[in-house]
This record gives sequence, C-alpha cells and structure tokens, in this order.
Amino acid sequence: MVTVDPKAAPKYIYRFTEGNAQMRELLGGKGANLAEMASLGLPVPPGFTITSEACRYYYENGGAVPADLWDGVREHLGKVEEAVGRRFGDPDNPLLVSVRSGSKFSMPGMMDTILNLGLNDETVRGFANGTGDRRFALDSYRRFIQLFGKVALRVEGDLFEKALEEAKKRAGAESDADLDADQLEGVVARYKAIAGEHSATAFPSDPWEQLKVAVEAVFQSWNNERAIAYRDFHGIPHDVYTAANVMAMVFGNSGWDSGTGVCFTRNPSTGERALYGEYLRNAQGEDVVSGARTPEKIAQLESEMPEVYGQLTDIASRLEKHFRDAQDIEFTIERGRLYMLQTRSAKRNGVAAVRMAVEMVGERLISRDEALERVPANDLSQLLLPRFDEKAKEEAVKEGRLLGTGLNASPGAATGKAILESAAVAAAAESGPVILVRPETSPDDMPGILRAAAVLTSRGGITSHAAVVTRGLGKPAVVGCTDVFVEPERHRFSANGKELAEGDEISVDGFTGEVFAGHIDTIDPDVGSNTHLIELLTWANETKRLGVRANADTPHESQVAIGFGAEGIGLCRTEHMFFDKDENNPERLPFVRDMLMYADEYYRAVRVVEEARDEGGEKLREAEARLAEAKRFKKALERLEEFQTADFRDILRVMDGKPVVIRLLDPPLHEFLPPYELLIEEVAVLRATNGDANELEEKERLLQAARSLHEQNPMMGHRGCRLGITYPDIYEMQVRAIVRAACDLVKEGLDPRPEVMIPLTMDVSELQALEPRLKAVIAGFEQCGGQRKIHFGTMIELPRAALTAGEIALAVDFFSFGSNDLTQMTFGFSRDDAEEKFLRYYVEHGILPVTPFRTIDERGVGRLIRIAVEEGRAANAELELGVCGEHGGDPESIEFCHRAGLTYVSCSPMRIPVARLAAAQAALGERERRDV
Amino acid sequence: MVTVDPKAAPKYIYRFTEGNAQMRELLGGKGANLAEMASLGLPVPPGFTITSEACRYYYENGGAVPADLWDGVREHLGKVEEAVGRRFGDPDNPLLVSVRSGSKFSMPGMMDTILNLGLNDETVRGFANGTGDRRFALDSYRRFIQLFGKVALRVEGDLFEKALEEAKKRAGAESDADLDADQLEGVVARYKAIAGEHSATAFPSDPWEQLKVAVEAVFQSWNNERAIAYRDFHGIPHDVYTAANVMAMVFGNSGWDSGTGVCFTRNPSTGERALYGEYLRNAQGEDVVSGARTPEKIAQLESEMPEVYGQLTDIASRLEKHFRDAQDIEFTIERGRLYMLQTRSAKRNGVAAVRMAVEMVGERLISRDEALERVPANDLSQLLLPRFDEKAKEEAVKEGRLLGTGLNASPGAATGKAILESAAVAAAAESGPVILVRPETSPDDMPGILRAAAVLTSRGGITSHAAVVTRGLGKPAVVGCTDVFVEPERHRFSANGKELAEGDEISVDGFTGEVFAGHIDTIDPDVGSNTHLIELLTWANETKRLGVRANADTPHESQVAIGFGAEGIGLCRTEHMFFDKDENNPERLPFVRDMLMYADEYYRAVRVVEEARDEGGEKLREAEARLAEAKRFKKALERLEEFQTADFRDILRVMDGKPVVIRLLDPPLHEFLPPYELLIEEVAVLRATNGDANELEEKERLLQAARSLHEQNPMMGHRGCRLGITYPDIYEMQVRAIVRAACDLVKEGLDPRPEVMIPLTMDVSELQALEPRLKAVIAGFEQCGGQRKIHFGTMIELPRAALTAGEIALAVDFFSFGSNDLTQMTFGFSRDDAEEKFLRYYVEHGILPVTPFRTIDERGVGRLIRIAVEEGRAANAELELGVCGEHGGDPESIEFCHRAGLTYVSCSPMRIPVARLAAAQAALGERERRDV
Repeated sequence: MVTVDPKAAPKYIYRFTEGNAQMRELLGGKGANLAEMASLGLPVPPGFTITSEACRYYYENGGAVPADLWDGVREHLGKVEEAVGRRFGDPDNPLLVSVRSGSKFSMPGMMDTILNLGLNDETVRGFANGTGDRRFALDSYRRFIQLFGKVALRVEGDLFEKALEEAKKRAGAESDADLDADQLEGVVARYKAIAGEHSATAFPSDPWEQLKVAVEAVFQSWNNERAIAYRDFHGIPHDVYTAANVMAMVFGNSGWDSGTGVCFTRNPSTGERALYGEYLRNAQGEDVVSGARTPEKIAQLESEMPEVYGQLTDIASRLEKHFRDAQDIEFTIERGRLYMLQTRSAKRNGVAAVRMAVEMVGERLISRDEALERVPANDLSQLLLPRFDEKAKEEAVKEGRLLGTGLNASPGAATGKAILESAAVAAAAESGPVILVRPETSPDDMPGILRAAAVLTSRGGITSHAAVVTRGLGKPAVVGCTDVFVEPERHRFSANGKELAEGDEISVDGFTGEVFAGHIDTIDPDVGSNTHLIELLTWANETKRLGVRANADTPHESQVAIGFGAEGIGLCRTEHMFFDKDENNPERLPFVRDMLMYADEYYRAVRVVEEARDEGGEKLREAEARLAEAKRFKKALERLEEFQTADFRDILRVMDGKPVVIRLLDPPLHEFLPPYELLIEEVAVLRATNGDANELEEKERLLQAARSLHEQNPMMGHRGCRLGITYPDIYEMQVRAIVRAACDLVKEGLDPRPEVMIPLTMDVSELQALEPRLKAVIAGFEQCGGQRKIHFGTMIELPRAALTAGEIALAVDFFSFGSNDLTQMTFGFSRDDAEEKFLRYYVEHGILPVTPFRTIDERGVGRLIRIAVEEGRAANAELELGVCGEHGGDPESIEFCHRAGLTYVSCSPMRIPVARLAAAQAALGERERRDV
Repeated sequence: MVTVDPKAAPKYIYRFTEGNAQMRELLGGKGANLAEMASLGLPVPPGFTITSEACRYYYENGGAVPADLWDGVREHLGKVEEAVGRRFGDPDNPLLVSVRSGSKFSMPGMMDTILNLGLNDETVRGFANGTGDRRFALDSYRRFIQLFGKVALRVEGDLFEKALEEAKKRAGAESDADLDADQLEGVVARYKAIAGEHSATAFPSDPWEQLKVAVEAVFQSWNNERAIAYRDFHGIPHDVYTAANVMAMVFGNSGWDSGTGVCFTRNPSTGERALYGEYLRNAQGEDVVSGARTPEKIAQLESEMPEVYGQLTDIASRLEKHFRDAQDIEFTIERGRLYMLQTRSAKRNGVAAVRMAVEMVGERLISRDEALERVPANDLSQLLLPRFDEKAKEEAVKEGRLLGTGLNASPGAATGKAILESAAVAAAAESGPVILVRPETSPDDMPGILRAAAVLTSRGGITSHAAVVTRGLGKPAVVGCTDVFVEPERHRFSANGKELAEGDEISVDGFTGEVFAGHIDTIDPDVGSNTHLIELLTWANETKRLGVRANADTPHESQVAIGFGAEGIGLCRTEHMFFDKDENNPERLPFVRDMLMYADEYYRAVRVVEEARDEGGEKLREAEARLAEAKRFKKALERLEEFQTADFRDILRVMDGKPVVIRLLDPPLHEFLPPYELLIEEVAVLRATNGDANELEEKERLLQAARSLHEQNPMMGHRGCRLGITYPDIYEMQVRAIVRAACDLVKEGLDPRPEVMIPLTMDVSELQALEPRLKAVIAGFEQCGGQRKIHFGTMIELPRAALTAGEIALAVDFFSFGSNDLTQMTFGFSRDDAEEKFLRYYVEHGILPVTPFRTIDERGVGRLIRIAVEEGRAANAELELGVCGEHGGDPESIEFCHRAGLTYVSCSPMRIPVARLAAAQAALGERERRDV
C-alpha cells in the first residue's frame, strides 16, 4: 500500500506495481487494471501511469503540467529501461513505448493513443536490427509518424492517406502489405515532409520531445468533440479527466514464436466456462484488425505453444478469481514470452450473463446476491424471444436486403408473407406465417394482428396502437418505419428503392427495428429448460420485496404470465375483451357499438318518459316509443354480460387462488367505430355520386354516432369512470359479470379472487357516486359462498387523484398507479402525438434524458406517486399499492417503485422475469444503501 | 341582558323583548330581528320565540318537546293576552296569533307558517264582532282551516282548492272576493268536513291544541323535502334547526285607517336613499299578493296618513342606523297604529349595492372597509354592460317571443339582424347591428365575430371558441342554445316552433342566456360618470395587496383595460394577432399558414443540405432546391415580424410605463387551416366527381398540411414552447419584433416595459434550450437605450412545471399560472369536451361543487400552485407570481390567489373592477382572520 502525506506535493506518477484496481479514479480503468495485474505478479510489460490529477492540473493551469512532472517521467522511464534492457532513443537497441489514454469510465475509442513512440531516423535502424525485420521497422515508423502527426500535431489525416495511396499506385501495390522496405522508406520521407509542411511545430525526432508532446496530446484528447459528446450522452461528468499510461512496447511479430490475441475467460454468447477468443502468430494487433490474415481459435494455441497456453489459462483463471468476474483479455507473445496488455470485465449477452452468474455461484466465486446484481434485468427479455440467426442477418445485409429501420416497438423476430389488409391475414395464414404490413393499425385490424406473426407499420410511434397491442401480445413489431411506403389498395409496398408485392416474404426484427426482404432463419428459445434462468429467478423471489403481477386480458396471457412467475394479475382491461373476435364466438363489436351508440339516448329517453308520465297520453306514448328504441342499449348490455361472464370465468380459473384486478371499462370510444375520417369520406362520396341509398343510410348512421362520440381531446374526454357514472348500467353489468363468474368457480370448488378497479378517478366523490350500486352487486359474492371479500380499488392516473389521495384512500382497498396516463397528464404529453412530433427531438437534444413513457420521471410523476403513497397510507394503513403502467416492466422504474414503498408492480407477461430480477436488485440496492 | 345558569334547564322561550339581533342561532333570523326591534322600543306586536334548541330537542327525542315547554308557552301567551287585552279562545274578544318558522339562515318559503290561529266556531263570532266584519272573520277562518289542515294535518291541499272552486261555481262567483259571508260559512263547514275525512286527527277546535300542533308542525317543516334539498344546494348545515315565533295577529284590514305594506329604506335598483315600496289600505298581506287591488307607492302614505308615514320614516332611519345597512321592512297599520312585522337586510342589485355602500360611508354609517365588503365583487360586472330594459323583456316574454335559453357565455345584451355566415356580417353590419348565429364558431369566423354585436351558437360549452372569444372581446354571447336549430346553407333557423329567416331581428341576453325574436331596447351604462363606483374602486386599490392586470391582445383591449384600472397586461396572446384580419392590413393568415406548413420541411431541408454538403454535386443541388422551396417558412416569418412589430408597438404605446407580459406563440395549429373534416369531404367529392383539377390540387395541399398538423389530442400535442424549441426561428422572430417595437418607442421618449413569457414549459431544460437565442435578441434592448431589463418568464400550466418549480424559478424572473390548462391537466378534463359530455352532470349531481374552470380547485390545482409558489420563491426570492387563466377574474379564485401569496392576477378587461374589489376583500378577509 502507498501512504500519501497530504501536505506533500501530489504524487502524479505511479509505477504499475504501485497501483491497484481500486484506483480507477486516479489511474483510469486501464491503468488500474494493469497495476492490479502487475501487483499479482502477472507478466505486464513495464510501465507507469501519469494520473488523471496531472491531467486535471493541466486543464486548471492553462495547459501547464505540474512542476517536476517531466523529471518524474524521466526517472520512471529509467526504471522501464532497466527492466527491459533497452534505452529510450538508443540508436542500437531502442526502447519503444506506447502512450495510452484511460479514464475512470470506459469511453471506447473516444480518446487518443500513440504506439511505437521513440522511433526516429536513427532508432528505426536499431529497431530493424533488433527485430531482424527492416520492413516491419519502417512500417512501424510510418504508422508512428502518421498517428503522432494526426493526434499530436493535428495534421489532417487525409494527407497521409493520400500519400500512401500515391505510393501504392507508383509501386503497383494493391494493399499496404505489398509495399517493400525501400518503398516504405520513401513513404516515411514523404510523411515527414507532410508533417513539416502542415504543422506549426516540426516533427520532433527527439524521443523525449515525442513523449512530452504525446502525453499532452492524450490529456487534450479528454476534451475533443467526440469525447465531450460521448460524456454528455452517457451522463459521465466532465471533470473526471484521463490518465496517460506509458508502457514498453512488446512485439508479437517478432517471429513464429510470437503472436497476439484477445480472449474471454467464458463464452460471451453462451456463458460456457472455457477460454474463448482468437490469436494470430507473428503479428501485431493491427494485423488482426485489418483482416488480412485469418486468426486462429484460441484452443489452437494449446497445440502450437502448449506452455504459453498453459500459462494463459492459468492467468485467465487467476484473473477470474481475482476480479470475481469473467474477463476480456488482450495479450502478446514476444519470442515465447507471454505479456498481458489489458484485462477488463467481459461484455456478454443476456443468455451468457445468466449462465455465468449462476455458475459462478456454483463455483463459489460470487454470492447469490452478487449473481442477482450481475445480470442487467432488461437483458432477461432476450432469453424469451425468438431471434434471427445473426449470421443469416449479416448475409442479408450484405445481399442488400435491408429495406429500412423503424422503431423497435415490440421485440422478437419473424419471417413471413407480407399481407397489407387485416381481413386477408386469416386466409393467408393458412399456408404459413404472415406479417401484417400497414400504414398504421386501428382496432379494426385486431383480427389481422391476432393472426399475424409480426406487424410492420410505416407510421406511428412507440405507443401507437400497433406498438401497444403487439407488446401486449408479445409479437414482434416495427412501427413508424418511414422508409417503407405502403399502398394497400394497390397491393404493394416499396422501400429503399425496392418494389414489393403483397405476398412477398419479408423479415422483421423487433429487437433492432430492421426490416428485410426475404427469409431469415429464426432461433427459438426454450425458457422452460433454461435451468440457469430458473435458478436465478428463484433467488430473485427470495430476495425481492415487491410483488410482481401481470397485465393480462385473456386466459392465454394469464397462462403465459403464470409460466413466468406472475403472482396475480394487476391489470385486466375489459375493453380489450370487447374487441375480441373469434370464429368460435359471435362477434362482440355490434353489441359494443350498440351499447355506445344508444347509451346517451337511453338515459335521455328514461328522463323524458319520467317527465311525460304526469302528462300521459300522446306525449307519454311518444316518449315510451323513444325509450323502446333506446333499449337497444340495455339489450346490448345483456349480451355483453354473457360474454364477459365467460371471459372472467376463464381468466379467474387460470389464476385460481391469485388476485385478478379487473379494470372496468375505460375505452377510447371512437375506436369501436370505423375511423371517423373514413366515414366522412365515404358519406361525402356516396352523396356526391348518388350512391346506394341503403349503404348511405347505414354509413350516415355510423357517421352520426362517430361524430357524437368524437372528441377534441379524447384522452381527456368522456372516458373511464366518467362513462361509468353517466351511464351507470355499464359498470353494474361488468361487476355483475365478475361476481357471476366468481360464483360459478366457487361452485366448482375453486378460489377466485377478483378485484374491481375504477379507472380515471379524479376525486373520491366519483367513487362515492359509483359505490352504492356496485357494492350492492359485489355483496352477491358472499351470498354465493365466496369466502374472500372482493376488493374495491381505483386507478391513480390523474394528477388530481394523486393530490387528493388521502381522501380517496378512505373509499378503497387499493390504488393502482396508471403511470402511462399519469405521465401524459403531468407532462401534458399525448403519447400518440408527442413521440414523433417532439419527444424524439427532446431526447436527442438532451431536453429529456429519456422518454418518460419508458422510465418513470421521478421528479414530476414520481413526486405525485410519493404524495399519493404517503397520504394514502396515512389515511388507510391497509391500502395496497401497485403500478400497472408500462413502467411496471422497466427496471429503473421498478427500482423507484421499491423505494417509493409500493406493494407490487404489474407488467406485460413477457416482462415478468425482468421485473422479478429488477425487484430483487432494488431490494439489494436498498440493503447496500442501508449498510453504507 | 339575560344571564343563563348553565346548570339550569335551558331556556326554551324568549319574549321578543328578551332577545336581540345577535341571537340568530337560537331565535332564528326572524325572531332575533323582531326581538331587536322590540328591544329598541319599536312597535312590534307582542309575542315570543320558541328556540331552535327546542326544535333540536324535538328531533333528538323522537318528537317529544322539552318538559314544561307547553307550560312555558301558556305563561308567555298569558303575557301576550295582557299586552293586547284579548284572551286566547275568548269567544267574545279572542286573541289570534301567527306561528312562524325562522332559522339562522334565510330559507325563504321552504318552511311553514300558520296565521289566524285561535279561530274556531265560537271565537270566529267574537272576532267578527270585534272587527265588525263577519265576512272577513269567516274568510280568515276558512284560510286558517285550509293552512292548518294542509300544514299541520297533512291534508292534500288540492281538496280544499276544489271545494272552494265548487263553492264559487255554485255562487256564480268569479273570484274568492265575490263570495259573501254566508257562502263562506258554507265553505268553512265543507273545509272542516274535509279535514275530518282526510286526517287521522280531527281538526282541533281548542285553540291551545291548535297552538301545540302548529308549533310541532313548524318544527317538522325543518325536515320537509324542499327544505332538505334547499340546504343541500346552499350548503346550509342540517343541524341548525328552526325556531317558532308566536305573535299576536294585527289586522291591516280593520278599516280605512288600517293597511299593510313592505318597503325598502333605499331603492334596491338604484341605491337612492329614500323609502321605496308600496302599501294597501284596509288590507292584509294576502290582498297585496293576490293582485286583486293595486298597491300605492309608499310616498302616497305621507298624504294619506302623515303621522304614520312620519313614524315609518323615523323607524326606517332608526333601523338603518341600528343595523347599519339598508332594510327590507314589513309593516301593518291597525286602526291608525303602526306595527313592525319584520325587518331584514335588503337585497339589491350591483348598481344599488355600490351606491348604498359608498353613500353609507359618507353618512358615517359604515367604514370604508365595510363598504368594500358589502358589495359582492361579481356584481360589479353588472355595472359595465348594456342590459335589456327589464320591462321590455317582460313584454317580450308575454308576447311569446322567447326563442330559448342557452348558456350565458358572455354577459351583455344586444339586438340586431341575425346573420348566419361570418363572411356576410361585414356587409350586413353597414346598415345596423348584426348578431352572428352559427351552429358553432371557429377561428375562420373571427372576422364575423369582430363585426357582430353578439354571438349565438346552438352548440358548444362555456369554454367553446365562441364563448372564449366573446368574453375576451366583451361582447354578449349565448352558446349551446340547443333550442335553436341553425341551417346556414338554407339561410334560416328555427327555435321553439318558430321559423326565422336570415336577416330577421333577434335579441340576445348574455346575462341570462335568453334569446328573443324581435327587438328589445337596451340600456347602456355610463361607467365613467359613476362616481360611486370610482370611489369604491379607489378604496379597493388602497386596501388590496394583489396587483390587477388585464389579459389583452390588442391596443383597443389595452385601452379598455386601462380605463378600468389595469396596472399592466398579464397576458398578451400573440396567436390572436395572427388571426387578425382587417381591410387596413393585408391578411396575415396566408403567412401564418406558410409558417406552419413549411416549418417542418424547412428544418428537415436544412439538415439534408448539411448532410449533402460533403457529397456535393447533384445531391447537394437537389437538397438546395428543396431548401429554397422550404424557405417560404423564413419568408413568412419576415412578413409576420413586420406585422408583429407594429402590433407590439401599438400595445406598448398604450401601456406606456406599465408591464406587458407577451406570451410567445402557443397556437392550436389546426385552427389556422380550414376545418380538417371539411377538407376531407371536399377532396373526396372532387375526386369522386372528377372535379376541377386546380381546385383539387389546392385542397389536397391544404388537406395534407391539415393531416400533418392533425393530432389525436392537440391540447397535449405540439404546442407552446415545444413548437418554439423544434422550430426556433419562430420565437426568435417574435422576440425580435418585441425588441424592435420597444426600441422604436424608446426613441419616441416613451417607457415600454415588455416581458417575454414562454408557454407550456414542463422542465427548466426547455427554458435552457430557448435561452441562448432569445436572450441574445433581448440584449438588443439595452443597445437601443432601453433602461429596464426585459423580464423573461414562463407560464406554469402543466402539473410537472409546478412540481419542478424550484428549478424553473432559477431560470426566470416570473411565473404566470395558466390556471385553465393547469386545471385541464390536473383533472384530465378537456374543456372542449368535458362541459357537455359529463361536467354539467358532475356539477348537477354534486360530484363537483362547481366547474373547476370557473373557480380554482383549491385541493388539487391550488395545491400545485402552492407547491410552485413556495418552492419557486425559496429558489428565487425576486420571483414575480401571477395568474392569467380565467380564474383571474373570479372572486373566489382571487381570494385563493391572495392567500397563496401571488403578486398579481390578470383577467379580461371587463373583469378588472371585479378583480380589484375581490382583491381588496381578500386583503380584508386576511386582516380579519389575523385579528381573530
């Protein structure tokens, strides 16, 4: 350990053997890990790190380095010379070094690095002699001038490239490798001339001068444009600064007993515990990247250099044990001697992350808690979905089959025939998978969406109908793919200059938003047999405090949710049942339409009859006739009650013994009718062309209904409990259906646990208005032998509900935060409109860090939730508190829900594993905060 | 004074001379005021009050009266007998009494009263002898049985009415007065039979029995249906209970030296200080009400009974001095002797209230503070508007000219020709006032609205376009008048079974929502010469703490605002200027349309050109051509800048030296284009009928623009600063116009004080995004010699802005609460949709006490405002805080603004006097709360 005298001048330089992995802030990630390896006695080329504090000093003092810095560098370099046995600037046996940037936070490729520093016209000869390869020495020299010129002297990089091109042309060479040593000598001369002409400072031949300039150039690269933008984007502070690592160069191209490579200690795609990577003999890193030679698999090294391989596996194992995580290693072999150039935590996909974490617990490398924290919760969703075979996709891109990229609205991958009209999907699906391709979708497209394997739209945002419905169904979708132009009436579509016909095969990648022409093979996951995932989620359940429920509207979704470990249904939307069309069931839509079209007239007619009763006679008869017609409303309700009773029964049966929160009707009314714009058009045309009178009458009737339901701002209109209060028979019908369904199941000996939820409440008075009729119906459950009380609760999805939650809490058993609508109202953002018109702009320009529809806005929406939680619980200690917006499946939002003290989150079935893990991580995070 | 032993049984009976006016709670309003008059020595018929506590006892003990109550009544009645010199039940000289209800809160007509109690077959004879009028005695008896039967015995009132009708038929009498004594004796017999047949209890002939039953009936009437409903509606508690007043009857029909009357101590219509009222000699109250004889003006009494008149004026003056307010008096003269039966504070209209209050200060009757509190602030608006002559309106109703009643959207009254199309208004207005009659209005109707004297629509709520615009313009409007059916294309409209043609004269009463056929004379107020109003408002200014500014968008409105005492403009909406069309100015709409239609394309094209610049050649030329076309956006901005500079200059000149808060553009984008639905229809028809190609092209272009601007929920869409951020040139143009205008005025030696306000902010990051460009332009004001800094502020109209106000406050000089939008978002109510679809239902059914768009919802919206005030001020102590929604003109909301600590309110010019008075009342209210 190093002890620092606080009064002494700061220590600006650390030998690798002085530092350790904890010193990331001072030495940067690269320097700290090199130091850790050196301290472990691993073969790291000798070197030292100039600290980020030196860089800070440089910025805070107008570009001056700390006094004595260069003296220190000379002193440390002397030690490197000793260790290596070469001298910096020695014409016969020169030491070459690399100068690499490296800060606390990984910023790959953003800052600068200079290699082969120390070469000049004299040392290059000694270097050639030492390596026995004059061409290699001159090529290294040429590369050094080019890199140093560009980075340190700010010479336009194109100038060097052009000079190289010219040299190749003159030599008739196809690639750089075709230039021989003499030709490279000419390039070196030309490069030096370019550097001299285009830089204020001459190209320094003195290696000491080179080193000073290079270190300052690394410091300066902290504030290049790319780096600043990267930090802005990733929220990395600008005052962390970079260290500069000076390390002796080692050469993997020193003969066939040399080489260079990268490897992972475990497979980053599968998680399998085995060295995974590749290497190239007699080569430098440059050669691996250029692709001129094909690297070998790392296993090959065992037969070619068994000793080195043994050393490497040993080091890999030590590094894993030491860092307690899979590592991504860079190494070089110089004349049979292994050097470690870098080690860092290995990147991995979701599948690998789960296997690695669970196996490491088995190996006693990490604890279960650590395993839970190691896997990014969101990555679990990758385990549940079909994916395209990556290679097949690469092929497709090469073949120019990429049609465009839209919004990755719903993950998964699918290939199938493109069908442009929903009505045609069912027939087409008989002979194979179908992808529904539309300008955008509406509820009328539901039958098509239900039958399609995936959906592609050219319009609409991440919260459009297509996006929301497919996410709910777990079907892949790409929406708002503006590259695609769809002409359903002409049965064709085009994209990226390609014309396609209806029926052509296309492939849709909901993970990435890519759309391809033609077929791409998909790979299906088998979650049930993924023992690693099952084990991890079992641990998650033992750790988490939050309950995890599903948003599910059908028995099928409920079944899926249970499979993924849902502890109940947190949101069962009844309006989605109204859309349901199925050849086994009669169509429901006509009854839904009757219900909505005659509701207003029905209640008006009832009042008129009441008023006319005193007068009697003609007036009463007229009024009664009017009421008789409006009774289509009541008749529709009767039919719908049958449908709903069956729906609820099926769901409650699947969810036997688990809570099922059923939200009463909250429909976007207009969605139950044909599109308003279309009706206007059709009626206008029928009138103008004296079209069929019957058709005109029917369309006019629909148009009139659409007009009366039409609202300026339907999101803030006659919705939710406003409908339930003004048309009280609707909610009463729904609650009756719930109670009937539950009673049926009680008779079967089951334990149904429905809960009734009122949407869009803004004041407790609304609940008080609804309560008398609904609670009377609910009481029926006790009479049929139901043991448990049916809970009565409300959505909290309007700011005012949150602000008056203390009063509302007295009237209910539970709150469920509808975070989607709460976000809309708190921000004044209409999801349907905001995404494309300005929200994307806001996120791109940093006005919002992320769309608040994905991650809960803690300062605004979160504050309202906290107010409601605090005041709701204060008023009613028994209050259950859940969230059922899409945020319920977002790990960051789940973490907030945990901190805010909610009882449970509810999310789409496919997000349940994510939510379970995120809930466990939230619990662990809290424990850690408490322990600090 | 009466001292009460708390351990003694409560005192349930007070002689009039024992009580006083402060005992309203115990004695009821009527009893307390009778007691007060008695204590003053005024001639009140002797009597006593049974307290509301006795009534409470009655309810709390299942209908039992307190022990000894009847003994007490007997004892007190004995004293009345002594005072009057008659005995209760004495067949020769009977005492008759009235039993009247009366509670702390006035509930006129809701509870029961019984007169002439004490009559039976025997006493009626003595009564006849005493009055010397047998017919009168029998008629009194008949009335007593009827009233007692109905009230105390619960006999169906119709039965008595029918019996009386039959008697008149038999007698061939036209009115009750035509029945002679004998015939009345028959009616009495029949009445007694009816009471006997239809009541469980026989009609009591014993006066003591009558009295007991009557007192209990009065108690019971506290909880009759009407009374309960009345208390619910007016928010009167149900546990206050009623007292019962027992008073000796006096008879104004005892000869020509007798009479009865009512009078006001000051004129309730004009406020003039002079007895105002009417009386009838030899009559009872009944005769005045029946209308059979025409009463005399009170002044007539001076010549007829000079002594009584002198006594009356003296009493009136004493009562005013005593109660320190104008009184409404009932009196009876019995044989030359004056009796006071009732006194109470006089109801008065706004005009009278102002004059009375100001004159009473002059008379040193009340203080200035009291004067300010005496006038209901809202009533001031009555002083500023033309009204219909009430008599002319009564005539019109009698003539059956009332067409219907809609929503009184904007007050005032106007008569004129009905014109059904906006385009036709200007021409028609040449020859006299015009009333624009439309199904509903849109911005395209603005030219017509501007020229019309009033607006009538058959659709739309209190916040519809027509309603909002006319309120802003101070023009009368009735909207949502569903009785009226308008057919513009057929140039006719109908209502109430009447067909009217375009051009027919109609009259619109914006105070009441009434619409009449034909002409009704209006009366114009002359506010400038209303010295009482001016004086009252001067006092208001000396008292209030809140500033009062106007919402004004034009120089004319600004002028009006100054006339009413505005201290500045709190909201100047620039989008209203864009609508402005005027033959003196070229039309602005085409430029506004170009701005909106090409904005998106312009910014896209700029990006495309940037991207193409590297590639050059054909691609760059194409991109540049695209940009050239899109520059119509910039050209439109240039023209609009000129318009706006002139607009701002004119307003700032009028408001010289006063702050003018200019809100940058926050348009409902679609309103600048022809209606979307209409365009769909037109294009569909043109296509279907192969219509004119040029017209089709033009309409298609407009439809495309309308479609791209069309939003699902425009209220939560691409509005306000979202537009200013995504299309930054628009706000920059506006701010430049403001600075140019201000600089022009500085050159003229004036003191312009514009302030720049950003609409629809949800986060400080939006202001930070706008600041650099806008503040650079604002800085130009200093360069041109502007002395004051131009303040930079924001609307707080989204819940999230209120919730993050602490951060926003650091970036601005002021907040202005946009309480309209804040209410919309907090409740999730779209004003356009809510009113008719459910809000009216909510208010009618008590789910909301009042529409939150009229009076600020303190628990929800008010809580957000308080959070923003508190956290905004904590962050920025200099922060100015105003409110500029329509609530700024609502007295209750102003009182809230005062308590919440705002700096000012801003309201429509016509509401400024109201706001000044309300602000003063709020300050007084606070002082009183502090003093308590």
